[in-house]
Amino acid sequence: MSTEFPYEVISEAQFEQHRARYEPLTVAMRRLIDAALVTDADEATVRAARDKIEQAARLLERHRRSTPIPAIHEDSGRPVVWTNPVVGLRNPISPPVVIEYDGDGRCYADFTLGDAYQGPPGWVHGGICALVLDHILGEAATAGLTQPKFTGTISLRYLRGTPLGRLRAEAWVERVEGVKTFARGQISDADGVTVEAEGVFIMPAWARDAG
Amino acid sequence: MSTEFPYEVISEAQFEQHRARYEPLTVAMRRLIDAALVTDADEATVRAARDKIEQAARLLERHRRSTPIPAIHEDSGRPVVWTNPVVGLRNPISPPVVIEYDGDGRCYADFTLGDAYQGPPGWVHGGICALVLDHILGEAATAGLTQPKFTGTISLRYLRGTPLGRLRAEAWVERVEGVKTFARGQISDADGVTVEAEGVFIMPAWARDAG
Repeated sequence: MSTEFPYEVISEAQFEQHRARYEPLTVAMRRLIDAALVTDADEATVRAARDKIEQAARLLERHRRSTPIPAIHEDSGRPVVWTNPVVGLRNPISPPVVIEYDGDGRCYADFTLGDAYQGPPGWVHGGICALVLDHILGEAATAGLTQPKFTGTISLRYLRGTPLGRLRAEAWVERVEGVKTFARGQISDADGVTVEAEGVFIMPAWARDAG
Repeated sequence: MSTEFPYEVISEAQFEQHRARYEPLTVAMRRLIDAALVTDADEATVRAARDKIEQAARLLERHRRSTPIPAIHEDSGRPVVWTNPVVGLRNPISPPVVIEYDGDGRCYADFTLGDAYQGPPGWVHGGICALVLDHILGEAATAGLTQPKFTGTISLRYLRGTPLGRLRAEAWVERVEGVKTFARGQISDADGVTVEAEGVFIMPAWARDAG
């Protein structure tokens, strides 16, 4: 990967060790967020829960890294973006969306969005659809984040509401023109497409001569 | 507000009572998320933190509402969207973005994005910019969510990277044509605009005759 960011290469064994340690923590935080969204607990119960949360935070804060170091997976050559808000296994903001890569540059993800991603009652927030689509179009445009490219423009067309629950996102590259990569994608539920997206991704100047 | 969703009207006093109880819980969860993102705690410490988090979740789960009921603020007439992923005071996924309304239909928000919203190292994930812009354009188009309208299309133009840290989002209505409201907006840092957005918001068929 041509990049101006520092990174470390990790093996599959290191990846799995790291994942085994931290992913259950993320899962616990997602459970907590879901519980907090719909609780009508009284003052004393909320205070007791808060105390537990602050104790957990203090435990983790005692072991604070100075700078998070991006990692590249040795086998796939792809960055492992642990803290990414869409796909990061260490970020409870992410659903997470777990992206699968077809050989031909397409990628897709089956994922579930619960109450934390709700806009109008029962429906996914339109901006959450935009977040997921921006990410997955970026994955397609950069061959799984192995090429440095940034979103230039992205346009979203909402065909109908996207229901909370089980969804699929897909993206693919339509064409490449010089430094511009044109990608398209969509989100769908069991009844078909709910949101369509098209985006232009641009290779930054610093990467154009790096080859 | 014309709506097909049930809701309850709450007074300022009820709003403040609810906020005083639950907002500190959300603040504690945001602190926990930030700590978890950058910790390199060992297995035993992570397990201890996880136990605390699961205890907190169980406390809150004992008081689970059957259905979250949307609330309308008595004074402003605006919905109080407690669990919204952009502005919700009860959703730690939200930064939160706290929106201010000018009299003339413009709205803006000063907010801070930390590590949980990061895409490339040091920069806000492009999709998070899209999430915030979709929301604030929607607020402008619906006069603070008091009119039922849904995103039809939204287009984003990324002028440059948006740095993590202190940011401003703004939105305003450009024009209204029948059931379509055209809104524009932007995100900026101290040096100027980083992302521009334009969106078309559409009044749903069920609301057109309701007046």
